Amino acid sequence: MTESRTDTIAAISTAPGRGGIAVVRVSGPDAWKVAEKVTGRRIADEDAGRFRHVGMAGVDEGLMLVFKAPRSYTGEDSVELQGHGGTVAPRRVLEACLAAGARLAGRGEFTLRAFLNGRLDLSEAEAVIDLVDARTERAATDAFARLEGALSRPFERLYAEAIDLSSRLEHALDVSEDELPDDFRSDIDSRIAALAREVDRMAATAHEGRLLREGALVVLAGAPNAGKSSLMNALLETDRTIVDSVAGTTRDAIEEGLDIAGWPVRLMDTAGLRETEDPVEAEGVNRARALVAKADIVVALDCDIPGALRIHAKCDLDGINGLDDRNGLEGIHVSAKTGEGLQALRQAIASRLEALAARGDEVAEADVTVRQKGFLLGASAALARAVGAIDCVAAANEVRTAAECLGKIVGKTYSDDLLEALFSRFCVGK
Amino acid sequence: MTESRTDTIAAISTAPGRGGIAVVRVSGPDAWKVAEKVTGRRIADEDAGRFRHVGMAGVDEGLMLVFKAPRSYTGEDSVELQGHGGTVAPRRVLEACLAAGARLAGRGEFTLRAFLNGRLDLSEAEAVIDLVDARTERAATDAFARLEGALSRPFERLYAEAIDLSSRLEHALDVSEDELPDDFRSDIDSRIAALAREVDRMAATAHEGRLLREGALVVLAGAPNAGKSSLMNALLETDRTIVDSVAGTTRDAIEEGLDIAGWPVRLMDTAGLRETEDPVEAEGVNRARALVAKADIVVALDCDIPGALRIHAKCDLDGINGLDDRNGLEGIHVSAKTGEGLQALRQAIASRLEALAARGDEVAEADVTVRQKGFLLGASAALARAVGAIDCVAAANEVRTAAECLGKIVGKTYSDDLLEALFSRFCVGK
Repeated sequence: MTESRTDTIAAISTAPGRGGIAVVRVSGPDAWKVAEKVTGRRIADEDAGRFRHVGMAGVDEGLMLVFKAPRSYTGEDSVELQGHGGTVAPRRVLEACLAAGARLAGRGEFTLRAFLNGRLDLSEAEAVIDLVDARTERAATDAFARLEGALSRPFERLYAEAIDLSSRLEHALDVSEDELPDDFRSDIDSRIAALAREVDRMAATAHEGRLLREGALVVLAGAPNAGKSSLMNALLETDRTIVDSVAGTTRDAIEEGLDIAGWPVRLMDTAGLRETEDPVEAEGVNRARALVAKADIVVALDCDIPGALRIHAKCDLDGINGLDDRNGLEGIHVSAKTGEGLQALRQAIASRLEALAARGDEVAEADVTVRQKGFLLGASAALARAVGAIDCVAAANEVRTAAECLGKIVGKTYSDDLLEALFSRFCVGK
Repeated sequence: MTESRTDTIAAISTAPGRGGIAVVRVSGPDAWKVAEKVTGRRIADEDAGRFRHVGMAGVDEGLMLVFKAPRSYTGEDSVELQGHGGTVAPRRVLEACLAAGARLAGRGEFTLRAFLNGRLDLSEAEAVIDLVDARTERAATDAFARLEGALSRPFERLYAEAIDLSSRLEHALDVSEDELPDDFRSDIDSRIAALAREVDRMAATAHEGRLLREGALVVLAGAPNAGKSSLMNALLETDRTIVDSVAGTTRDAIEEGLDIAGWPVRLMDTAGLRETEDPVEAEGVNRARALVAKADIVVALDCDIPGALRIHAKCDLDGINGLDDRNGLEGIHVSAKTGEGLQALRQAIASRLEALAARGDEVAEADVTVRQKGFLLGASAALARAVGAIDCVAAANEVRTAAECLGKIVGKTYSDDLLEALFSRFCVGK
C-alpha cells in the first residue's frame, strides 16, 4: 500500500494455467497510452464501450476492450487485452504492458482502486474476493448477495443510527440540561441498546461466514492401515493418493476440497496415529495430531477421539477376519469398497456442520466476515459502555467510537493498515 | 464430432481456478437469445462490437461482449459473458447458459467451428492449441508464428504445386503423346523431385517441434539417497518434494516443468534404483526404469547408465566422508547444497537439447507438428514413386495422392476422423 494509487497498473486477471483465453487488465491515467504502444492502434473517446481485434506486441493477438473513466471496474481509464490462454502468451502480453509504462499491480489493487474511487464499499470489496474463492453454491450465493449490497444496506443503516445518536449526544453537551427533554437520556439509552442488539445479531452470523469462506476442516484419523486413504478416495470418488495394504503408506497429510450439502469441506487424510522410529513418518504423525486438534470435525476410524464422529471402516470385512462381533464396532458402518454407509457418513458430517453454523432462529441473507465481526464486537462493547455512562460526555465518546467501528466496515473511515489487511487476501489481477 | 456443427454451444473459456475474472463463451445461431435469457437484456445489431455491464441470472454480474457473424472467433453469432473468476461463479453462469438452450461445447469446438467457417486453416488451428500449451518463450514464438500463417503459406505453396503437377499429368492422359513436348516427362519429373525435396525439408523440422510442444523429458536417476530430490529442488529453486536423509523417501515419480534456455523441460525425479522387498517402493523402482528408457535425457547421479549425462552429486561432501579421490568421481561435480555446478549442469542439458533438435543448417521460422509430419512423409513417399513411375497414368495417381496429403495439412481435404484426432487435443472452451 506504499505504492502510488494514481499510476497505471497492469496484471493478468484470469486464473493461471491451461485455458482458451486470458485477460490482461490495465488501469490508470496512462492505460490507453500503454495499450496504444502494445497494440499499435490509436484509442479515442468513441472507442469506449467497444472492442476490436488487435495484435499485441508481436507475441499474441486478440480483443482490446476500452473503458473510459469513470465507467470501468476501477473508475479509471482502463483497457482489457484478451489474448490466448496458457502460461506464456498472457505473460508476454503483460510484459509488453510493463515495458510500455505500466507497473505490475499488487494483490487486489484493481478492487482497491474501485473502492477508493467509490465504485464499491469495503464490505462489497470483501464480497468480491469471497465470490472468487467460493467453493460451493452456498458460499457463492452468500458472497454474491453481499456484493449486491445485502450487507452494505444494514451496515449503512447501523452506521447512520450511530452517527445520529452521536450527534444528538454531542448537541446535548452544548445546551444546558434544562433545555433537554426529561426523558432525553432514557430515550437515547434505549436507542443505543436497540442498536447494540442489532449489532450483536449481525456479529452472530460470522461463524457460518467462516465455514462458508474458509471451508470446514474435516480430518480422517485412525491407526495405520485403518482405511483412511481408501475412505478419502471413496468420498472423493477419485484415486489420487497411493492406496496400498502396506501400513504407513501416507506420509504427508493430503488435503482435498469436497462439497457436502453445499458446505465447502477441506478433507484431510493423515498419517496413521502410531508410535514410530522412522523420522519421516514420525513427522507425519505429529502433523496428524496437530490437525486433529484444530479440525472442525474429526472422523475417527475404529478408534476413540473425544468429540469425534466415530465410524467403523472396512465393514465389508466383518465376519471374514474373525471380526464378527458387530456390536463391539461402534459408529457408522462404512465400506470404501462397497460404498456401504458413505451416504450416512456424508449426512452425519452435514448435520454436524449445520449445528456448527447454527446461530439461533434468524436466517441472514448474507453472513458477516471475521473482519467485520471484529468491528461489530468493538461497536457492541462501546455501545454497552455508553448505556451505563455517567454523563453525556462519556456516552458521546463511546457512541462515537461505535460509529467509527461501524464506519470501518463499509469504509466510511479507513486506515492504510486496514486496507493492507483487507486487500492482501486478494489475488493479483483483481 | 457426432454432435451438430450448427447448434449453439457454450463453455468456460478461461483457465479453471482462482482468478479475478472468467469468461463464458456462447456461439451459434441462438447465442444472442441465450444471452438475452441469462442477462435479461435485449441484443440488437448495433450492439455488435460493444460491451456493457449486465447481471447474469442472479448469480453473477459483469460484462457482456456481443459479436455478429461473421465477425467473431467462430464466424458465428457469439456472446462472451465476463464475470467473476474462481470455481463456482463461472460454473453457475455456464449452467444458466445451458438452461437457456445452449449445449456444453466439446474440446476445441469453438476452434473447430472457426475452421469450418474458414476463419483459420488446420495448421493455424493446431497453432492455437500449441500457443495455449506453450511452456517457454521459444515454444510460444514458434506457435504464434504458425498462427500468423508462417507454415500455412509454405503449405499452401506446396499444395498448389502438387495440384498443378497433378492437373498437367492428367491433361497429358487426354492428348496423344505426339502433342506433348519432348521433354514433358523430364520437366515434370524434375519439378516433382524439387517438390519432394521441399516436403522433406519441412518434415525435418518436426523433431524440434515435438520438443517445443511436449517438452523434453529429463529424468534424474541414481541409487537411493544419491541426492536426486535435493538436486531437483535446487534446479527448481523451490521445495516441493520431501527431502530427507532416510533412503527411499521418494516413492512416486514427481514431474516438474522447467525452462532451460527456452526449452520446456519435464524434469522427473524417480525412486532410487535398488532392489527392494517393499511392494510400494518396488512399483516406484519399476516406474523409474521405464522412465529412464523413454527419457530424452537421463541425468545419472554417481552411476553408469548408457548414454546418460553423468554427474557427481553432493560434491560438497568430497573429502569429508573419506571420498577424497575426486578423479574417481566422474562427470560434472554438482552440489545442491552450495549450488556448485548447477549452472554447468543446465548448460550441459541445453547443449544436448540443441543437438537433439538439430536438423541441418536451415532454421525454419516455425516447426511442423507430428500430425503434419505424417502427411509430409506420405506426400514425400508418393512423390518418390511418381518420379519412377512407368507412365503418366501411374505418375498422375501418385501426384494426386501427394496433393491429398498436403491438402490435409491445411484442411483443403479432411475427414471426421482427422478433425476428431486434431481437436481432441484442445481444452473445452477454446
